[in-house]
Amino acid sequence: MDENKPMVKPCPLTISLEPENQETPIHFVEDWVTPEEFFYKRNHFRYPSASEAPTTLQIDGIVQRPLVFDLEQLCKLPSKTLAVPLECAGNKRTMYHPRVYGVQWQKGAISQGIWKGVPLHVLLERAGIQSGAKEIVFTGADRGNHTAYQRSLPVDKAMHPDTIVAYELNGASIPLKHGFPFRLIVPGWYAMASVKWLCRISVIDQSFEGPFQTTDYMYYPHPDSDDGKSPVTTMKVNSIIRQPQDYDILARGTNLIKGIAWTGEGRISEVEVSTDNGVSWEPATLLGDSRHPYAWVFWSYEWEAKQKGEYVILARARDSAGRVQPMQPEWNRKGYGYNGVSRIRVKVD
Amino acid sequence: MDENKPMVKPCPLTISLEPENQETPIHFVEDWVTPEEFFYKRNHFRYPSASEAPTTLQIDGIVQRPLVFDLEQLCKLPSKTLAVPLECAGNKRTMYHPRVYGVQWQKGAISQGIWKGVPLHVLLERAGIQSGAKEIVFTGADRGNHTAYQRSLPVDKAMHPDTIVAYELNGASIPLKHGFPFRLIVPGWYAMASVKWLCRISVIDQSFEGPFQTTDYMYYPHPDSDDGKSPVTTMKVNSIIRQPQDYDILARGTNLIKGIAWTGEGRISEVEVSTDNGVSWEPATLLGDSRHPYAWVFWSYEWEAKQKGEYVILARARDSAGRVQPMQPEWNRKGYGYNGVSRIRVKVD
Repeated sequence: MDENKPMVKPCPLTISLEPENQETPIHFVEDWVTPEEFFYKRNHFRYPSASEAPTTLQIDGIVQRPLVFDLEQLCKLPSKTLAVPLECAGNKRTMYHPRVYGVQWQKGAISQGIWKGVPLHVLLERAGIQSGAKEIVFTGADRGNHTAYQRSLPVDKAMHPDTIVAYELNGASIPLKHGFPFRLIVPGWYAMASVKWLCRISVIDQSFEGPFQTTDYMYYPHPDSDDGKSPVTTMKVNSIIRQPQDYDILARGTNLIKGIAWTGEGRISEVEVSTDNGVSWEPATLLGDSRHPYAWVFWSYEWEAKQKGEYVILARARDSAGRVQPMQPEWNRKGYGYNGVSRIRVKVD
Repeated sequence: MDENKPMVKPCPLTISLEPENQETPIHFVEDWVTPEEFFYKRNHFRYPSASEAPTTLQIDGIVQRPLVFDLEQLCKLPSKTLAVPLECAGNKRTMYHPRVYGVQWQKGAISQGIWKGVPLHVLLERAGIQSGAKEIVFTGADRGNHTAYQRSLPVDKAMHPDTIVAYELNGASIPLKHGFPFRLIVPGWYAMASVKWLCRISVIDQSFEGPFQTTDYMYYPHPDSDDGKSPVTTMKVNSIIRQPQDYDILARGTNLIKGIAWTGEGRISEVEVSTDNGVSWEPATLLGDSRHPYAWVFWSYEWEAKQKGEYVILARARDSAGRVQPMQPEWNRKGYGYNGVSRIRVKVD
């Protein structure tokens, strides 16, 4: 009955303030749906102010009928509600060896929300895509350095029934910091594709060449040349060990190892845990929800820690597309898409 | 005039919740006095509830007159107000190589407050220390595992005119999370000495052997033996580079390198900066305040980054006792007292 006990709660992890980049305190937030206060924030520019946020969404380019929607009109169209984890392509960038420069994301540039919106294909069909269309360009209201935030999708991904123009997050209007009033949600892709403050959708007949499409958000496999570069698109299969944490001291006996796993292709089919640095592996218990194909899954494993000593604990997720977290991730110069086997060290005392 | 712009502010860094351990977001909080919301929290146990917080302070042991004070009585005694940085002995533990297990403090287990209270010697003189007194034991109201948090001081440090029993932080009652109503403040020592929720002061004629005195808060220089152990007491001379941050990408031109420096002996006399990994050093500009002998100082250095490339930036503080941050800190098994030269890597692009 200690109602007068001080409240203890986690805080987002501040990475930078100008622009604001803050992580979900992923080791401590146990919710399946990330509460808004803990939802990670990733920005390239300062926020649009409330008066700069879009009031309408324009659809133009090579379409038969250029259209403009406001929020009220969008809300009257058919809608879809999806549980989607958004993961920054730079999540876990700090874990690459050799280390990579840039926004130093640890493990929490990922959050899960319930997004409601209009399937994009509904809007594009109303506008009428003309033949010759190759990509769809999405423009956000956030801008700086003489450029707006813009990203494109190929037509087939744009027309996927689960690519939506969202107007609700977790049952309420999208918060200003997360893209009010309209945010593109592209399930399965890293979150650079899910353009916030969406104000314009343009159908074009060529490849979009904006800086966030051709300079950033590209995998560059070599430190000093651009050879072999390729675009960042689908999320890799991935996981984190939420508890224990790296370099924790544990008591002998039963210790629960738990975390989350997610993928951009298919579903998580298995998570295995090793408590002997990969010599042997045991399956973890998965707590998924088959109604939500894109959602992350919780996993856990009860470890009987019998002997004092230092242990390397690993976790690796596998998805239904047959992908598995590699022991060594594919290093790339800008540090995107880290998905090496999850690894912590603990001491049993 | 963007009054409707979303507010951006840093958050404390959550290290653990049971008990609560949270860092000051030290790279982002620019205040000389750390605001309460950002003051770091370090606990060994759960918090005392408001009803468990002490209402009186008892002085006993080998004294002529055992005494009990309540807050009102303490406030009538002579007082002293001091700007004191409190630093957890485990601050920067994550920076040791080989890595050390335990609470994984990064660089923000340090905060500065304005503490007002009664010099401890005033209380001890009223109680009358008897001959044969060797140490003074301080008991906090926080407890767990069948033990209370207790620490001792040698008589001479207890009698130092600046060792105070504080009852105000930054001009208000000490917040419950920081030791309400009484907190011992021991300027110059690592903060394990500054006992929160202070309820009892006992004069003893021997060495105190409590677990936070003889097991924890000892330097153990060897990984597998206790040979050569010594107690953690005075803060080492130390600094951090607040900006830029590790692995930042900077623009060519003038970049401000800035941070804080502090010491437990004397004052900070110099901070030097190297932008070539220690080949050459230049003095930083110090922004100290001579009225506050214990306070941390701000320092800054304008770096003209002329060429693209990767740089290792170092900062080292020196104090008036002649101590200087070493290139290699003294590794110890429990990871206390890290004060190796401050070091970050940046890329100029």
